[in-house]
Amino acid sequence: MEETAGVLLDFFIIFVLAKAAAEVFQRLRQPTVIGELLVGVAIGPHALGLVDVPLLDTHGGLSFVYEVMAELGLVVLLFFVGLETRLDDLLRVGRRSLAVAVLGVALPFALGTAFMASTGHPNTEALFVGAALVATSVGITARVLRDLGVLGSKEARIILGAAVADDILALLALTAVTQMDQEGGVDVGEVIVTAAVAVAFVAFTALVGTRVVRRYSLHLERLQIPNAPLVVALALMLGLSAVAGELGLAGIIGAFLAGIILAESREQLQLERRAQPIYEFLVPFFFVLTGAKVDLGTFSEGGTIGLALVITGLAVLGKLVGCGVGGYGLGRRSMLILGVGMVPRGEIGFVVASVALAQGAVGANVFSSVVFMSIATTLVVPPVLSMLYGRSRALEVDGGRC
Amino acid sequence: MEETAGVLLDFFIIFVLAKAAAEVFQRLRQPTVIGELLVGVAIGPHALGLVDVPLLDTHGGLSFVYEVMAELGLVVLLFFVGLETRLDDLLRVGRRSLAVAVLGVALPFALGTAFMASTGHPNTEALFVGAALVATSVGITARVLRDLGVLGSKEARIILGAAVADDILALLALTAVTQMDQEGGVDVGEVIVTAAVAVAFVAFTALVGTRVVRRYSLHLERLQIPNAPLVVALALMLGLSAVAGELGLAGIIGAFLAGIILAESREQLQLERRAQPIYEFLVPFFFVLTGAKVDLGTFSEGGTIGLALVITGLAVLGKLVGCGVGGYGLGRRSMLILGVGMVPRGEIGFVVASVALAQGAVGANVFSSVVFMSIATTLVVPPVLSMLYGRSRALEVDGGRC
Repeated sequence: MEETAGVLLDFFIIFVLAKAAAEVFQRLRQPTVIGELLVGVAIGPHALGLVDVPLLDTHGGLSFVYEVMAELGLVVLLFFVGLETRLDDLLRVGRRSLAVAVLGVALPFALGTAFMASTGHPNTEALFVGAALVATSVGITARVLRDLGVLGSKEARIILGAAVADDILALLALTAVTQMDQEGGVDVGEVIVTAAVAVAFVAFTALVGTRVVRRYSLHLERLQIPNAPLVVALALMLGLSAVAGELGLAGIIGAFLAGIILAESREQLQLERRAQPIYEFLVPFFFVLTGAKVDLGTFSEGGTIGLALVITGLAVLGKLVGCGVGGYGLGRRSMLILGVGMVPRGEIGFVVASVALAQGAVGANVFSSVVFMSIATTLVVPPVLSMLYGRSRALEVDGGRC
Repeated sequence: MEETAGVLLDFFIIFVLAKAAAEVFQRLRQPTVIGELLVGVAIGPHALGLVDVPLLDTHGGLSFVYEVMAELGLVVLLFFVGLETRLDDLLRVGRRSLAVAVLGVALPFALGTAFMASTGHPNTEALFVGAALVATSVGITARVLRDLGVLGSKEARIILGAAVADDILALLALTAVTQMDQEGGVDVGEVIVTAAVAVAFVAFTALVGTRVVRRYSLHLERLQIPNAPLVVALALMLGLSAVAGELGLAGIIGAFLAGIILAESREQLQLERRAQPIYEFLVPFFFVLTGAKVDLGTFSEGGTIGLALVITGLAVLGKLVGCGVGGYGLGRRSMLILGVGMVPRGEIGFVVASVALAQGAVGANVFSSVVFMSIATTLVVPPVLSMLYGRSRALEVDGGRC
């Protein structure tokens, strides 16, 4: 009981500062996730050291508690991303969204990997950086579009559809590079097997799960425990995360699938509302503790700030060109909106970087550069997107398929 | 990430079995908390060993994660007990409730302590057992009365008022015996100081906190982060728990005070509704992990089952006589209802036993006996109370003060 009192104090500091920062960034009309990350950077052991947050290389009792809290926050976050994703959107995703997604994934991956490999970094490090540049953050993109009130616009639909496909590809890339690194090198056969298992697990769970849930949700109303739909949802979230982990996949893939399955059920809207408090409570821990791992000192070492700027530039260029070309034929302004809208990176980039750092696959300077990239791409987009929509809103027509 | 996957699997097993047991006990019209405890007993390391739940004497990384999860669940539970407690009820509590509470606390404490001391147990162990017999479970009592639909009856009001005072006394007793044991013996001066600090902290926080919150809650509406009232409530819960811990008090006293303070604010009803998902998610961990600590093997050792039955008998007798006498003049049936209604023990008893076990102040046989007492007193009351109300409901008049 005495040791846990100190942990409660740390939880209090993390939670209060994260929410205070979120409030400030909300008022600045910037994504609150940036505030949570910056709080982590500020209070982490590399900076103020206000909170006894662990470094990744320590594995004592306290350290592991924070890892589990961060993992729980991450699982809940991906569960929510899944809840916002309809299986229909995945299955019916138009050519346009798919083109934007594939090109927007391929170009940043190629640019990041090629740059790192050509500058003398090991293959695994190069592939990790490529993978970290892949994923657009669904949450940040959607929230920016919602803040602008343009969720119904043609470009917003394409972006949302592409973000969904993009997220799946990024999760597969994460699984692939994780598997590769465990093998100690690049094993293409292993990657293909892993990708096949991942695709099979994702497809089977999503398709079969949806039908089972539709049938099972009839019974949820008969359960007598309070908040039965929420309880079943949380159980599915934990269960699929655990199964994914047992299969060697990332646990968050299971949480994402649980969200997708439940998004199809009739309880979907209630679930988002009901689970929101758990989101508010746990998710900030992931971002604060991720920020706490950033070692600002690495930027003073020769070349790291340069590396961060180059990686950020490649991240912006890759999405801008890749997604923009994916929108070829829609006009220059729409292509620009698609490109800019897909630029924000988020949770997946951190995850890739965290996994890579934990496995010793990337150095501290590369990790810090990737986190810098995630923050920078997230910070720069909202004002630019606002400007583009402000200029073009008069021309917008809420079209059908494209 | 890999280690945390195993923890997610354990969380899944704990959560699903706890909720399944809750569903079963809900259908049996029994308190669901019993189901969660029994699940813990069944899957714990002393029985099936399904989950790698730690014993208290281990302090590795995994073990500490479970301790923190259980502590978080406990903090949330006491926060909710506080939310259900109006400061007005505490301040305006009638003589009758106070008499029932004081006698109902004093007699079980005296009986438990005297029995243990007279049978050759050390003073600290005797005082811990006395303290463990003190507290009626507000939650269980209130839920049984609500299930019976008699929350408005005269006896129910007295019981609820007494349960509130009883809870405060029990929390003070817990703090007192915890402090004593840290000193390695009975230090009356230390107990008085601790009690004074506890009373001052509780009184100051409750009285000043209420006014501050009333003023502050005006600002909550101006906050722009989602679920601002919930966020502030969780911050207060964590913050007061941490402050209580820093003062050397039990952290849950702070959580209880946070609940009492916020019960007075206009957000009270919304808070209970909003925080409910966090309750559903975290609270079962405390009860399952508490149950997992029960070593059924100790009952096979000579005398433990006898000890458990004697302690349970004293627990029932103490409340039945103490609270019954507190209701003297209301008639035999009302006195019986008051006595029976105050019999269920709950979370506080487990907390005292857990603290005592962690500090090595009580043996495994005494710990198991106290947990047995908590389960037995909780199990026996609902049917008896139903019977008493069934027979007497025709005679009930919803009177005013008594």
